[in-house]
Amino acid sequence: MYDVCPNQNDAYFVLDGVQIRTVCASIKDAHRDDIVLFTFDMPYNFSGVYTLTECPAAPVIRCKNIDSISETTRGLVVNSGNANACTSSQGLDDIEYILEPLASHYKINTSDFLMCSTGVIGERLPVDNIRDALSKITQQSQSQTFHDAAKAIMTTDTYDKCIRKTFTINEQEFTLIAIAKGAGMIAPNMATMLSFIFTDFQIPRSMHRNILVQSVEKSFNLITVDGDTSTNDTVLLFSPPEKENTQYNAHDIETFTNTLDVVNKTLAKMIIMDAEGARKFIRVRVENAQSYEQAKKIALSIANSPLCKTAIAGEDANWGRIFMAIGKANAGIVHDKISLYIGDVLVAENGHVAPHYIETDLDTYMKNKEITLTVNLALGQHNIEVLTSDLNEQYIAINADYRS
Amino acid sequence: MYDVCPNQNDAYFVLDGVQIRTVCASIKDAHRDDIVLFTFDMPYNFSGVYTLTECPAAPVIRCKNIDSISETTRGLVVNSGNANACTSSQGLDDIEYILEPLASHYKINTSDFLMCSTGVIGERLPVDNIRDALSKITQQSQSQTFHDAAKAIMTTDTYDKCIRKTFTINEQEFTLIAIAKGAGMIAPNMATMLSFIFTDFQIPRSMHRNILVQSVEKSFNLITVDGDTSTNDTVLLFSPPEKENTQYNAHDIETFTNTLDVVNKTLAKMIIMDAEGARKFIRVRVENAQSYEQAKKIALSIANSPLCKTAIAGEDANWGRIFMAIGKANAGIVHDKISLYIGDVLVAENGHVAPHYIETDLDTYMKNKEITLTVNLALGQHNIEVLTSDLNEQYIAINADYRS
Repeated sequence: MYDVCPNQNDAYFVLDGVQIRTVCASIKDAHRDDIVLFTFDMPYNFSGVYTLTECPAAPVIRCKNIDSISETTRGLVVNSGNANACTSSQGLDDIEYILEPLASHYKINTSDFLMCSTGVIGERLPVDNIRDALSKITQQSQSQTFHDAAKAIMTTDTYDKCIRKTFTINEQEFTLIAIAKGAGMIAPNMATMLSFIFTDFQIPRSMHRNILVQSVEKSFNLITVDGDTSTNDTVLLFSPPEKENTQYNAHDIETFTNTLDVVNKTLAKMIIMDAEGARKFIRVRVENAQSYEQAKKIALSIANSPLCKTAIAGEDANWGRIFMAIGKANAGIVHDKISLYIGDVLVAENGHVAPHYIETDLDTYMKNKEITLTVNLALGQHNIEVLTSDLNEQYIAINADYRS
Repeated sequence: MYDVCPNQNDAYFVLDGVQIRTVCASIKDAHRDDIVLFTFDMPYNFSGVYTLTECPAAPVIRCKNIDSISETTRGLVVNSGNANACTSSQGLDDIEYILEPLASHYKINTSDFLMCSTGVIGERLPVDNIRDALSKITQQSQSQTFHDAAKAIMTTDTYDKCIRKTFTINEQEFTLIAIAKGAGMIAPNMATMLSFIFTDFQIPRSMHRNILVQSVEKSFNLITVDGDTSTNDTVLLFSPPEKENTQYNAHDIETFTNTLDVVNKTLAKMIIMDAEGARKFIRVRVENAQSYEQAKKIALSIANSPLCKTAIAGEDANWGRIFMAIGKANAGIVHDKISLYIGDVLVAENGHVAPHYIETDLDTYMKNKEITLTVNLALGQHNIEVLTSDLNEQYIAINADYRS
């Protein structure tokens, strides 16, 4: 429905040092590739940010383990169609079984490969299918593109999410390419999303994790579809090892982190625009909060409120429901200080309807595909913007029938 | 859709000492009574439990004020169709203006009357309409029934919620009658609901509030429709003043509180059964939790999860989503200890699918109107049951169009 995916030539969506191969293992569908294998020509540095759920899926448990003991990896396997979640120790054994022939082919350990999964929760992976499929693709000589990879990790996504951006440091051009899958369940901390970010820039190892964590907080952690949190959310950042004689200064690093932020925010926006059944793209801005946490709490309370989201689906400027969501956040607001804009229209100030506001002022605006709500708390100087989508009968249809 | 409302003769739904009059003030609809006036023949004891929102409506602010300084009241006015919320000090002034002629008619103060409102947020009450309507009904000699009152406070409710129960203490028969309005937004602490409970039993003043608070925690605070919290939720308990020579012992009080619990739980169930667009009535039981708080956190996380609620709407035993909701509650569970029953069928144990579970076992069960989910945490001895409804396209239709 939206065309935010940069319509660039597929040939640009490759990166020196990263091999990409996709294959169909018929996990849910015999007619599309549902496995992607990334391999690196040398050990790449990596960092991950993972779901905060107390029921993490087997691949998340395993990634976190490896992440805590190793700084590098030689590759990544991702499957769609099955989350390998709620599969207990069997799920962990299955990953080992799947990766064994792969590791032996490359003459490395299974722990040199990461694995991520997305799809239905609670079912065992079809391990032999996947193992066979992986054996097959290791024979393929031709590397594919990140667009192919982005397609292979889709579940209820309606289009693949892939973005490429170049940047220049010390007169050298570098590239950042990232892919993601999203759809429902995108909050409050990532959720039902996978994102894999690759660059040929040698991120200093000491800053690797911090750079990723900070960028995720500004992007994937500020989007929400339904307030549900997945068992499988994972964001991984990969980069080549540092060269011995290269030193980057603070400005160089900033050039990289700025590019990373743009890429992650764009992917986050693409995820929301493709949220299950979404017809409206909603920006919830909370301004002049006492703290970042207060701003975030209120913005997420509005963005996750079924009553606010259905009102917007119905193109109804029902601003009272926004105050309802502000009030329930329990974030220490002062009701009579709050003003609210819908688009550019001042709807409420000092906690009640603005004197010159007439509802018909918003009749045209509410029909827009993109709606911006701005809440001014008048308590401090912290601002935030959370992205979400409307809640309409399409969401219900998709989620009531997801498995059938 | 459900017939839980006891189909008793209207004549039973009256209580000595309580006068009831309803009238149409054309707040939203010129063809139905939208105001109810309760008056007591003498000052009645009362206690209230109110919404926890930080944006309470004017009537809630005022009730809480009066509640904090006075133990008694002479009457209650309730209107539907307009919540008098987000109306700032104007909203408080409007209540005084509405109650003035009433107070003067009965030769008491406006503060001797409570007022509650429910309906659209953010619009001013049509004060003159309501004032005129109230003047009119004070002239009516005939008192009406609690059924009439229950009808007048409905908003998107599809039937009136009214229940009557008698109990015997010291060989004397007493009556408890309660009415409620509900529909959407019923959680996590009451929400979009009003309930008024009346009895001819002289509840000892020293226990009045405590009895109400404890009963609300066991009933209205354990139901949820969409996780939204209203600006107007109020539960009020009214009883005649204590007689000088009457003493009740602990057993007598227990007889009363047990009756109160049954009444409130029944009303809570009626609210959920009439939740906006609901087709399924869902019991979420969490058993063997470490604490009551842990059990409640997990039960509400499941009951509020759009993904769990749409799965049940789609008659899909998608138990993975229940684990998703358990995991996101962040309540200190041990994943591998958890077992899950849907109805009587053991679906998962030790955190993963039960060995003998076949999904077709649940094909028939999922078509039921009433669905019970039982999560056993195997951590302690605390149990809870939360009631909720499914999330289907009817909820969307009602809430996208609520004001039009």
